[in-house]
Amino acid sequence: MEKIISVKNDRIKAWKKLSNKKGREKQSAYLLESWHLVNEALNANQDIKVILTTAKQLTLHQNELSYYNSELIEINDEVAKYLGSTITPQGIFAIVGLPSKEDINENNINGSWLLLDNIQDPGNIGTMVRTADAAGMSGVIFGKGTSSQFNPKVLRSMQGSQFHLKIIEGNLLYWIDILKDKNYQVYGSELNEDAFIYNEIVPSENFALIMGNEGNGMQDDLLKITDKNLYIPIKGNAESLNVAIASGILMFHLKK
Amino acid sequence: MEKIISVKNDRIKAWKKLSNKKGREKQSAYLLESWHLVNEALNANQDIKVILTTAKQLTLHQNELSYYNSELIEINDEVAKYLGSTITPQGIFAIVGLPSKEDINENNINGSWLLLDNIQDPGNIGTMVRTADAAGMSGVIFGKGTSSQFNPKVLRSMQGSQFHLKIIEGNLLYWIDILKDKNYQVYGSELNEDAFIYNEIVPSENFALIMGNEGNGMQDDLLKITDKNLYIPIKGNAESLNVAIASGILMFHLKK
Repeated sequence: MEKIISVKNDRIKAWKKLSNKKGREKQSAYLLESWHLVNEALNANQDIKVILTTAKQLTLHQNELSYYNSELIEINDEVAKYLGSTITPQGIFAIVGLPSKEDINENNINGSWLLLDNIQDPGNIGTMVRTADAAGMSGVIFGKGTSSQFNPKVLRSMQGSQFHLKIIEGNLLYWIDILKDKNYQVYGSELNEDAFIYNEIVPSENFALIMGNEGNGMQDDLLKITDKNLYIPIKGNAESLNVAIASGILMFHLKK
Repeated sequence: MEKIISVKNDRIKAWKKLSNKKGREKQSAYLLESWHLVNEALNANQDIKVILTTAKQLTLHQNELSYYNSELIEINDEVAKYLGSTITPQGIFAIVGLPSKEDINENNINGSWLLLDNIQDPGNIGTMVRTADAAGMSGVIFGKGTSSQFNPKVLRSMQGSQFHLKIIEGNLLYWIDILKDKNYQVYGSELNEDAFIYNEIVPSENFALIMGNEGNGMQDDLLKITDKNLYIPIKGNAESLNVAIASGILMFHLKK
Protein backbone atom coordinates (compact mmCIF):
# COMPACT_ATOMS: atom_id res chain seq x y z
CA MET A 1 0.00 0.00 0.00
CA GLU A 2 1.29 3.41 -0.96
CA LYS A 3 2.18 5.74 1.87
CA ILE A 4 2.32 9.55 1.77
CA ILE A 5 3.84 11.36 4.71
CA SER A 6 4.57 14.81 3.30
CA VAL A 7 2.18 17.71 2.82
CA LYS A 8 4.39 18.76 -0.07
CA ASN A 9 3.40 15.71 -2.08
CA ASP A 10 1.78 16.84 -5.36
CA ARG A 11 -1.35 14.71 -5.02
CA ILE A 12 -1.91 15.90 -1.44
CA LYS A 13 -1.49 19.50 -2.58
CA ALA A 14 -4.05 18.91 -5.33
CA TRP A 15 -6.57 17.30 -2.94
CA LYS A 16 -6.18 20.16 -0.49
CA LYS A 17 -7.65 22.35 -3.25
CA LEU A 18 -10.89 20.37 -3.11
CA SER A 19 -11.92 22.46 -0.12
CA ASN A 20 -12.87 25.26 -2.49
CA LYS A 21 -15.28 25.39 -5.40
CA LYS A 22 -12.69 26.11 -8.07
CA GLY A 23 -10.65 23.08 -7.08
CA ARG A 24 -13.69 20.84 -7.00
CA GLU A 25 -14.82 21.91 -10.45
CA LYS A 26 -11.37 21.54 -11.95
CA GLN A 27 -10.85 18.05 -10.56
CA SER A 28 -14.53 17.09 -10.75
CA ALA A 29 -14.24 15.65 -7.25
CA TYR A 30 -14.73 16.58 -3.59
CA LEU A 31 -13.20 15.57 -0.27
CA LEU A 32 -15.15 13.64 2.37
CA GLU A 33 -13.83 13.52 5.90
CA SER A 34 -14.37 11.14 8.87
CA TRP A 35 -15.25 7.48 8.95
CA HIS A 36 -18.97 8.07 9.31
CA LEU A 37 -19.13 9.94 6.00
CA VAL A 38 -16.66 7.71 4.17
CA ASN A 39 -18.67 4.70 5.27
CA GLU A 40 -21.96 6.30 4.18
CA ALA A 41 -20.40 7.01 0.78
CA LEU A 42 -19.23 3.40 0.49
CA ASN A 43 -22.70 2.12 1.38
CA ALA A 44 -24.30 4.52 -1.10
CA ASN A 45 -22.03 3.32 -3.93
CA GLN A 46 -20.57 6.72 -4.53
CA ASP A 47 -17.74 7.13 -7.02
CA ILE A 48 -14.85 6.91 -4.55
CA LYS A 49 -11.52 7.41 -6.33
CA VAL A 50 -9.13 7.16 -3.39
CA ILE A 51 -9.33 6.56 0.35
CA LEU A 52 -6.64 8.15 2.53
CA THR A 53 -6.25 6.73 6.00
CA THR A 54 -3.91 6.79 8.95
CA ALA A 55 -2.63 3.42 10.18
CA LYS A 56 -4.89 3.76 13.22
CA GLN A 57 -8.06 4.30 11.21
CA LEU A 58 -7.10 1.46 8.88
CA THR A 59 -6.90 -0.94 11.82
CA LEU A 60 -10.22 0.27 13.17
CA HIS A 61 -12.11 -0.20 9.89
CA GLN A 62 -10.20 -3.08 8.30
CA ASN A 63 -13.31 -5.23 7.86
CA GLU A 64 -15.42 -2.64 6.12
CA LEU A 65 -12.52 -1.51 3.96
CA SER A 66 -11.78 -5.03 2.77
CA TYR A 67 -14.71 -4.69 0.32
CA TYR A 68 -13.24 -1.53 -1.17
CA ASN A 69 -11.39 -2.05 -4.44
CA SER A 70 -9.99 1.30 -5.56
CA GLU A 71 -6.85 3.07 -4.44
CA LEU A 72 -6.05 3.06 -0.71
CA ILE A 73 -3.22 5.26 0.59
CA GLU A 74 -1.78 5.45 4.06
CA ILE A 75 -1.15 8.94 5.44
CA ASN A 76 0.25 10.23 8.71
CA ASP A 77 -1.28 12.65 11.22
CA GLU A 78 0.50 15.61 9.68
CA VAL A 79 -1.09 15.02 6.27
CA ALA A 80 -4.47 14.38 7.94
CA LYS A 81 -4.24 17.67 9.76
CA TYR A 82 -3.30 19.46 6.52
CA LEU A 83 -6.27 18.05 4.59
CA GLY A 84 -8.83 18.15 7.40
CA SER A 85 -11.22 20.99 8.13
CA THR A 86 -11.34 20.41 11.89
CA ILE A 87 -8.75 20.99 14.60
CA THR A 88 -8.27 17.28 15.26
CA PRO A 89 -9.20 15.32 12.13
CA GLN A 90 -10.10 11.67 12.64
CA GLY A 91 -7.57 10.62 10.00
CA ILE A 92 -9.67 9.13 7.21
CA PHE A 93 -10.72 10.79 3.94
CA ALA A 94 -12.22 9.88 0.59
CA ILE A 95 -11.76 11.62 -2.73
CA VAL A 96 -15.17 11.27 -4.34
CA GLY A 97 -16.17 12.09 -7.92
CA LEU A 98 -18.80 14.84 -8.15
CA PRO A 99 -22.16 13.11 -8.66
CA SER A 100 -23.53 13.50 -12.17
CA LYS A 101 -26.37 16.00 -12.18
CA GLU A 102 -29.35 13.79 -11.59
CA ASP A 103 -31.78 13.60 -14.39
CA ILE A 104 -34.65 15.19 -12.51
CA ASN A 105 -37.14 17.07 -14.62
CA GLU A 106 -40.76 18.07 -14.77
CA ASN A 107 -41.80 14.54 -15.66
CA ASN A 108 -40.17 12.65 -12.83
CA ILE A 109 -39.93 15.09 -9.93
CA ASN A 110 -42.17 13.95 -7.09
CA GLY A 111 -42.63 13.83 -3.33
CA SER A 112 -41.94 16.81 -1.13
CA TRP A 113 -39.05 19.25 -1.50
CA LEU A 114 -37.26 21.72 0.73
CA LEU A 115 -36.03 24.83 -1.11
CA LEU A 116 -33.17 26.86 0.37
CA ASP A 117 -33.23 30.52 -0.59
CA ASN A 118 -29.92 32.18 0.24
CA ILE A 119 -29.18 30.22 3.42
CA GLN A 120 -25.76 31.34 4.60
CA ASP A 121 -24.65 29.27 7.54
CA PRO A 122 -23.13 25.90 6.56
CA GLY A 123 -24.22 24.36 9.87
CA ASN A 124 -27.82 25.43 9.27
CA ILE A 125 -27.75 24.08 5.72
CA GLY A 126 -26.36 20.71 6.76
CA THR A 127 -28.82 20.38 9.64
CA MET A 128 -31.69 21.24 7.29
CA VAL A 129 -30.67 18.48 4.85
CA ARG A 130 -30.35 16.00 7.73
CA THR A 131 -33.77 17.05 9.05
CA ALA A 132 -35.34 16.86 5.58
CA ASP A 133 -34.05 13.29 5.35
CA ALA A 134 -35.56 12.42 8.74
CA ALA A 135 -38.89 14.01 7.79
CA GLY A 136 -39.10 11.87 4.66
CA MET A 137 -38.66 14.65 2.11
CA SER A 138 -37.63 13.61 -1.42
CA GLY A 139 -34.95 16.22 -1.81
CA VAL A 140 -33.49 19.64 -1.20
CA ILE A 141 -32.93 22.37 -3.78
CA PHE A 142 -30.01 24.70 -3.03
CA GLY A 143 -30.94 28.09 -4.51
CA LYS A 144 -28.73 31.05 -5.34
CA GLY A 145 -26.60 32.34 -2.45
CA THR A 146 -26.82 29.09 -0.51
CA SER A 147 -23.44 27.51 0.34
CA SER A 148 -22.36 24.57 -1.80
CA GLN A 149 -23.31 21.04 -0.82
CA PHE A 150 -19.58 20.20 -1.03
CA ASN A 151 -18.45 22.87 1.44
CA PRO A 152 -16.61 20.92 4.19
CA LYS A 153 -18.82 22.28 6.98
CA VAL A 154 -22.00 21.56 5.04
CA LEU A 155 -20.77 18.00 4.36
CA ARG A 156 -20.01 17.52 8.03
CA SER A 157 -23.36 18.66 9.31
CA MET A 158 -25.37 16.74 6.69
CA GLN A 159 -23.97 13.60 8.40
CA GLY A 160 -24.51 11.44 5.33
CA SER A 161 -28.12 12.46 4.66
CA GLN A 162 -26.96 13.75 1.27
CA PHE A 163 -26.82 10.11 0.18
CA HIS A 164 -30.41 9.42 1.28
CA LEU A 165 -32.24 12.07 -0.69
CA LYS A 166 -31.81 14.08 -3.89
CA ILE A 167 -29.92 17.34 -3.95
CA ILE A 168 -30.24 19.88 -6.75
CA GLU A 169 -28.28 23.13 -7.02
CA GLY A 170 -30.33 25.42 -9.20
CA ASN A 171 -32.62 28.33 -9.86
CA LEU A 172 -35.54 28.27 -7.42
CA LEU A 173 -37.85 30.23 -9.76
CA TYR A 174 -37.34 27.58 -12.44
CA TRP A 175 -38.15 24.71 -10.09
CA ILE A 176 -41.10 26.44 -8.47
CA ASP A 177 -42.64 26.90 -11.93
CA ILE A 178 -42.29 23.19 -12.59
CA LEU A 179 -43.77 22.24 -9.21
CA LYS A 180 -46.69 24.62 -9.62
CA ASP A 181 -47.43 23.15 -13.04
CA LYS A 182 -47.76 19.80 -11.28
CA ASN A 183 -50.30 21.33 -8.88
CA TYR A 184 -47.93 21.24 -5.92
CA GLN A 185 -48.68 23.55 -3.05
CA VAL A 186 -45.66 25.84 -2.73
CA TYR A 187 -45.31 27.19 0.80
CA GLY A 188 -43.27 30.21 1.71
CA SER A 189 -42.22 30.84 5.29
CA GLU A 190 -42.57 34.52 5.99
CA LEU A 191 -44.88 36.30 8.35
CA ASN A 192 -47.08 38.74 6.45
CA GLU A 193 -50.69 39.87 6.44
CA ASP A 194 -51.91 36.86 4.53
CA ALA A 195 -49.77 34.24 6.27
CA PHE A 196 -51.34 31.06 7.62
CA ILE A 197 -50.50 29.41 10.94
CA TYR A 198 -48.54 26.35 9.88
CA ASN A 199 -50.50 23.80 11.88
CA GLU A 200 -53.76 24.69 10.17
CA ILE A 201 -52.36 23.24 6.95
CA VAL A 202 -53.40 19.66 6.21
CA PRO A 203 -50.32 17.41 5.84
CA SER A 204 -49.71 16.06 2.32
CA GLU A 205 -47.38 13.87 0.31
CA ASN A 206 -46.35 16.39 -2.33
CA PHE A 207 -45.42 19.98 -1.57
CA ALA A 208 -42.55 22.45 -1.65
CA LEU A 209 -41.41 24.49 1.35
CA ILE A 210 -39.14 27.50 0.85
CA MET A 211 -36.93 28.69 3.73
CA GLY A 212 -35.35 32.15 3.42
CA ASN A 213 -32.13 33.81 4.50
CA GLU A 214 -31.30 33.88 8.23
CA GLY A 215 -31.36 37.65 8.48
CA ASN A 216 -33.40 38.92 5.55
CA GLY A 217 -35.98 36.22 4.94
CA MET A 218 -37.21 35.19 1.51
CA GLN A 219 -36.60 37.09 -1.71
CA ASP A 220 -39.55 39.17 -2.87
CA ASP A 221 -39.79 37.53 -6.27
CA LEU A 222 -40.16 34.13 -4.62
CA LEU A 223 -42.71 35.38 -2.09
CA LYS A 224 -44.91 36.61 -4.94
CA ILE A 225 -45.31 33.18 -6.47
CA THR A 226 -45.91 31.01 -3.40
CA ASP A 227 -49.40 29.61 -2.86
CA LYS A 228 -49.41 30.25 0.86
CA ASN A 229 -47.03 31.75 3.37
CA LEU A 230 -46.80 29.93 6.65
CA TYR A 231 -45.71 31.19 10.04
CA ILE A 232 -44.95 29.66 13.40
CA PRO A 233 -46.49 31.69 16.22
CA ILE A 234 -43.87 32.89 18.70
CA LYS A 235 -45.28 32.70 22.22
CA GLY A 236 -42.39 34.07 24.28
CA ASN A 237 -40.15 37.06 23.65
CA ALA A 238 -37.67 35.55 21.22
CA GLU A 239 -37.41 37.66 18.08
CA SER A 240 -37.29 34.66 15.79
CA LEU A 241 -36.54 30.98 15.52
CA ASN A 242 -33.30 29.62 14.09
CA VAL A 243 -34.00 28.78 10.43
CA ALA A 244 -33.10 25.11 10.84
CA ILE A 245 -35.40 24.76 13.87
CA ALA A 246 -38.22 26.47 11.97
CA SER A 247 -37.75 24.20 8.94
CA GLY A 248 -37.84 21.14 11.25
CA ILE A 249 -41.12 22.17 12.85
CA LEU A 250 -42.64 22.93 9.44
CA MET A 251 -41.46 19.77 7.64
CA PHE A 252 -42.50 17.47 10.47
CA HIS A 253 -45.96 19.01 10.42
CA LEU A 254 -46.47 19.30 6.65
CA LYS A 255 -45.15 15.90 5.52
CA LYS A 256 -47.76 13.18 5.57
CA MET B 1 -14.75 59.02 29.78
CA GLU B 2 -11.96 56.64 30.68
CA LYS B 3 -10.09 55.04 27.80
CA ILE B 4 -8.15 51.77 27.87
CA ILE B 5 -6.00 50.92 24.90
CA SER B 6 -3.69 48.23 26.26
CA VAL B 7 -4.39 44.54 26.74
CA LYS B 8 -1.89 44.67 29.59
CA ASN B 9 -4.20 46.87 31.65
CA ASP B 10 -5.02 45.08 34.93
CA ARG B 11 -8.78 45.45 34.65
CA ILE B 12 -8.76 44.16 31.07
CA LYS B 13 -6.65 41.19 32.16
CA ALA B 14 -9.14 40.47 34.94
CA TRP B 15 -12.15 40.69 32.60
CA LYS B 16 -10.49 38.37 30.13
CA LYS B 17 -10.69 35.74 32.88
CA LEU B 18 -14.48 35.93 32.80
CA SER B 19 -14.43 33.61 29.82
CA ASN B 20 -13.89 30.67 32.17
CA LYS B 21 -15.90 29.42 35.11
CA LYS B 22 -13.23 30.02 37.75
CA GLY B 23 -12.91 33.66 36.75
CA ARG B 24 -16.66 34.16 36.72
CA GLU B 25 -17.07 32.68 40.18
CA LYS B 26 -14.19 34.65 41.65
CA GLN B 27 -15.44 37.98 40.27
CA SER B 28 -19.12 37.06 40.51
CA ALA B 29 -19.61 38.46 37.02
CA TYR B 30 -19.65 37.42 33.37
CA LEU B 31 -18.86 39.03 30.04
CA LEU B 32 -21.54 39.81 27.45
CA GLU B 33 -20.50 40.57 23.89
CA SER B 34 -22.15 42.39 20.96
CA TRP B 35 -24.68 45.19 20.92
CA HIS B 36 -27.67 42.88 20.60
CA LEU B 37 -26.87 41.16 23.89
CA VAL B 38 -25.73 44.30 25.72
CA ASN B 39 -28.97 45.98 24.66
CA GLU B 40 -31.06 43.00 25.79
CA ALA B 41 -29.29 43.11 29.17
CA LEU B 42 -29.99 46.84 29.48
CA ASN B 43 -33.67 46.30 28.65
CA ALA B 44 -33.86 43.44 31.12
CA ASN B 45 -32.42 45.57 33.95
CA GLN B 46 -29.48 43.28 34.48
CA ASP B 47 -26.77 44.27 36.93
CA ILE B 48 -24.38 45.84 34.41
CA LYS B 49 -21.19 46.99 36.14
CA VAL B 50 -19.25 48.36 33.18
CA ILE B 51 -19.78 48.81 29.46
CA LEU B 52 -16.70 48.71 27.23
CA THR B 53 -17.11 50.15 23.76
CA THR B 54 -15.06 51.23 20.79
CA ALA B 55 -15.58 54.80 19.59
CA LYS B 56 -17.45 53.43 16.58
CA GLN B 57 -19.95 51.42 18.62
CA LEU B 58 -20.42 54.37 20.96
CA THR B 59 -21.44 56.59 18.05
CA LEU B 60 -23.80 53.94 16.72
CA HIS B 61 -25.62 53.43 20.02
CA GLN B 62 -25.31 56.86 21.63
CA ASN B 63 -29.06 57.27 22.13
CA GLU B 64 -29.65 53.97 23.88
CA LEU B 65 -26.50 54.35 25.99
CA SER B 66 -27.53 57.80 27.19
CA TYR B 67 -29.89 56.09 29.69
CA TYR B 68 -27.06 54.02 31.12
CA ASN B 69 -25.64 55.36 34.38
CA SER B 70 -22.78 53.08 35.44
CA GLU B 71 -19.20 53.04 34.25
CA LEU B 72 -18.56 53.45 30.53
CA ILE B 73 -15.05 52.87 29.16
CA GLU B 74 -13.76 53.41 25.66
CA ILE B 75 -11.54 50.65 24.26
CA ASN B 76 -9.77 50.20 20.95
CA ASP B 77 -9.98 47.36 18.43
CA GLU B 78 -6.98 45.60 19.93
CA VAL B 79 -8.61 45.34 23.35
CA ALA B 80 -11.90 44.30 21.73
CA LYS B 81 -10.14 41.53 19.88
CA TYR B 82 -8.43 40.38 23.08
CA LEU B 83 -11.67 40.19 25.07
CA GLY B 84 -13.91 38.89 22.29
CA SER B 85 -14.67 35.26 21.57
CA THR B 86 -15.12 35.70 17.81
CA ILE B 87 -12.62 36.44 15.07
CA THR B 88 -13.97 39.94 14.44
CA PRO B 89 -15.69 41.21 17.59
CA GLN B 90 -18.22 43.98 17.13
CA GLY B 91 -16.46 46.10 19.75
CA ILE B 92 -18.97 46.41 22.58
CA PHE B 93 -19.05 44.44 25.83
CA ALA B 94 -20.74 44.51 29.22
CA ILE B 95 -19.43 43.20 32.51
CA VAL B 96 -22.58 41.86 34.18
CA GLY B 97 -23.00 40.67 37.77
CA LEU B 98 -23.99 36.99 38.00
CA PRO B 99 -27.75 36.90 38.56
CA SER B 100 -28.70 35.92 42.11
CA LYS B 101 -29.97 32.36 42.14
CA GLU B 102 -33.64 32.90 41.59
CA ASP B 103 -35.83 31.94 44.44
CA ILE B 104 -37.63 29.18 42.60
CA ASN B 105 -38.87 26.35 44.75
CA GLU B 106 -41.58 23.75 44.97
CA ASN B 107 -44.16 26.36 45.91
CA ASN B 108 -43.69 28.78 43.05
CA ILE B 109 -42.36 26.74 40.13
CA ASN B 110 -44.93 26.67 37.34
CA GLY B 111 -45.47 26.55 33.59
CA SER B 112 -43.48 24.25 31.36
CA TRP B 113 -39.78 23.49 31.64
CA LEU B 114 -37.07 22.17 29.37
CA LEU B 115 -34.47 20.01 31.16
CA LEU B 116 -31.02 19.60 29.61
CA ASP B 117 -29.31 16.35 30.56
CA ASN B 118 -25.64 16.47 29.64
CA ILE B 119 -25.98 18.54 26.47
CA GLN B 120 -22.45 19.19 25.23
CA ASP B 121 -22.53 21.53 22.28
CA PRO B 122 -22.78 25.22 23.26
CA GLY B 123 -24.53 26.04 19.97
CA ASN B 124 -27.18 23.38 20.63
CA ILE B 125 -27.68 24.62 24.19
CA GLY B 126 -28.10 28.23 23.14
CA THR B 127 -30.47 27.34 20.31
CA MET B 128 -32.55 25.22 22.71
CA VAL B 129 -32.91 28.14 25.14
CA ARG B 130 -33.87 30.46 22.27
CA THR B 131 -36.40 27.90 21.01
CA ALA B 132 -37.80 27.34 24.52
CA ASP B 133 -38.37 31.09 24.75
CA ALA B 134 -40.18 31.11 21.38
CA ALA B 135 -42.31 28.13 22.39
CA GLY B 136 -43.48 29.92 25.54
CA MET B 137 -41.70 27.70 28.06
CA SER B 138 -41.22 29.11 31.58
CA GLY B 139 -37.62 28.09 31.91
CA VAL B 140 -34.72 25.79 31.24
CA ILE B 141 -32.87 23.67 33.80
CA PHE B 142 -29.20 23.01 32.97
CA GLY B 143 -28.38 19.60 34.45
CA LYS B 144 -25.00 18.07 35.23
CA GLY B 145 -22.57 17.94 32.29
CA THR B 146 -24.36 20.67 30.37
CA SER B 147 -22.15 23.68 29.47
CA SER B 148 -22.56 26.77 31.61
CA GLN B 149 -25.11 29.43 30.68
CA PHE B 150 -22.23 31.93 30.83
CA ASN B 151 -20.01 30.13 28.32
CA PRO B 152 -19.37 32.72 25.56
CA LYS B 153 -20.70 30.46 22.79
CA VAL B 154 -23.82 29.58 24.78
CA LEU B 155 -24.42 33.29 25.47
CA ARG B 156 -24.04 34.07 21.79
CA SER B 157 -26.46 31.46 20.56
CA MET B 158 -29.11 32.20 23.23
CA GLN B 159 -29.41 35.63 21.51
CA GLY B 160 -30.85 37.26 24.63
CA SER B 161 -33.53 34.65 25.34
CA GLN B 162 -31.83 34.06 28.70
CA PHE B 163 -33.43 37.33 29.81
CA HIS B 164 -36.93 36.23 28.78
CA LEU B 165 -37.25 33.03 30.76
CA LYS B 166 -35.85 31.47 33.94
CA ILE B 167 -32.62 29.53 33.94
CA ILE B 168 -31.63 27.15 36.73
CA GLU B 169 -28.36 25.23 36.93
CA GLY B 170 -29.03 22.25 39.14
CA ASN B 171 -29.63 18.59 39.82
CA LEU B 172 -32.27 17.25 37.45
CA LEU B 173 -33.31 14.44 39.81
CA TYR B 174 -34.07 17.02 42.50
CA TRP B 175 -36.20 19.15 40.18
CA ILE B 176 -38.01 16.20 38.60
CA ASP B 177 -39.07 15.08 42.09
CA ILE B 178 -40.52 18.51 42.77
CA LEU B 179 -42.34 18.63 39.43
CA LYS B 180 -43.76 15.13 39.89
CA ASP B 181 -45.06 16.09 43.34
CA LYS B 182 -46.97 18.86 41.61
CA ASN B 183 -48.52 16.31 39.24
CA TYR B 184 -46.54 17.51 36.23
CA GLN B 185 -46.16 15.11 33.36
CA VAL B 186 -42.43 14.53 32.97
CA TYR B 187 -41.54 13.51 29.42
CA GLY B 188 -38.32 11.82 28.46
CA SER B 189 -37.16 11.75 24.85
CA GLU B 190 -35.73 8.37 24.12
CA LEU B 191 -36.94 5.66 21.81
CA ASN B 192 -37.69 2.49 23.74
CA GLU B 193 -40.33 -0.24 23.80
CA ASP B 194 -42.80 1.84 25.77
CA ALA B 195 -42.20 5.15 24.00
CA PHE B 196 -45.13 7.20 22.69
CA ILE B 197 -45.24 9.05 19.38
CA TYR B 198 -44.95 12.68 20.40
CA ASN B 199 -47.93 13.97 18.46
CA GLU B 200 -50.34 11.64 20.22
CA ILE B 201 -49.76 13.59 23.43
CA VAL B 202 -52.36 16.26 24.20
CA PRO B 203 -50.71 19.70 24.55
CA SER B 204 -50.75 21.18 28.04
CA GLU B 205 -49.69 24.23 30.05
CA ASN B 206 -47.54 22.51 32.64
CA PHE B 207 -45.03 19.80 31.85
CA ALA B 208 -41.33 19.00 31.85
CA LEU B 209 -39.42 17.75 28.82
CA ILE B 210 -35.97 16.18 29.25
CA MET B 211 -33.52 16.18 26.33
CA GLY B 212 -30.48 13.90 26.57
CA ASN B 213 -26.86 13.97 25.44
CA GLU B 214 -26.17 14.31 21.69
CA GLY B 215 -24.43 10.95 21.43
CA ASN B 216 -25.56 8.88 24.38
CA GLY B 217 -29.11 10.03 25.04
CA MET B 218 -30.61 10.35 28.51
CA GLN B 219 -29.10 8.98 31.70
CA ASP B 220 -30.67 5.73 32.91
CA ASP B 221 -31.61 7.08 36.33
CA LEU B 222 -33.60 9.88 34.70
CA LEU B 223 -35.26 7.56 32.21
CA LYS B 224 -36.56 5.44 35.09
CA ILE B 225 -38.53 8.26 36.65
CA THR B 226 -40.15 9.89 33.61
CA ASP B 227 -43.89 9.43 33.14
CA LYS B 228 -43.67 8.86 29.42
CA ASN B 229 -40.91 8.67 26.87
CA LEU B 230 -41.66 10.37 23.58
CA TYR B 231 -40.17 9.77 20.17
CA ILE B 232 -40.30 11.47 16.82
CA PRO B 233 -40.73 8.93 14.02
CA ILE B 234 -37.90 9.11 11.49
CA LYS B 235 -39.30 8.58 8.00
CA GLY B 236 -36.15 8.73 5.88
CA ASN B 237 -32.74 7.19 6.47
CA ALA B 238 -31.24 9.72 8.85
CA GLU B 239 -29.95 8.01 11.98
CA SER B 240 -31.22 10.71 14.28
CA LEU B 241 -32.31 14.31 14.53
CA ASN B 242 -30.10 17.06 15.89
CA VAL B 243 -31.03 17.48 19.57
CA ALA B 244 -32.00 21.15 19.16
CA ILE B 245 -34.25 20.33 16.18
CA ALA B 246 -35.88 17.49 18.13
CA SER B 247 -36.48 19.72 21.14
CA GLY B 248 -38.06 22.36 18.87
CA ILE B 249 -40.49 19.86 17.32
CA LEU B 250 -41.39 18.49 20.75
CA MET B 251 -41.83 21.83 22.55
CA PHE B 252 -43.91 23.36 19.75
CA HIS B 253 -46.20 20.35 19.86
CA LEU B 254 -46.43 19.87 23.64
CA LYS B 255 -46.88 23.48 24.77
CA LYS B 256 -50.48 24.64 24.80
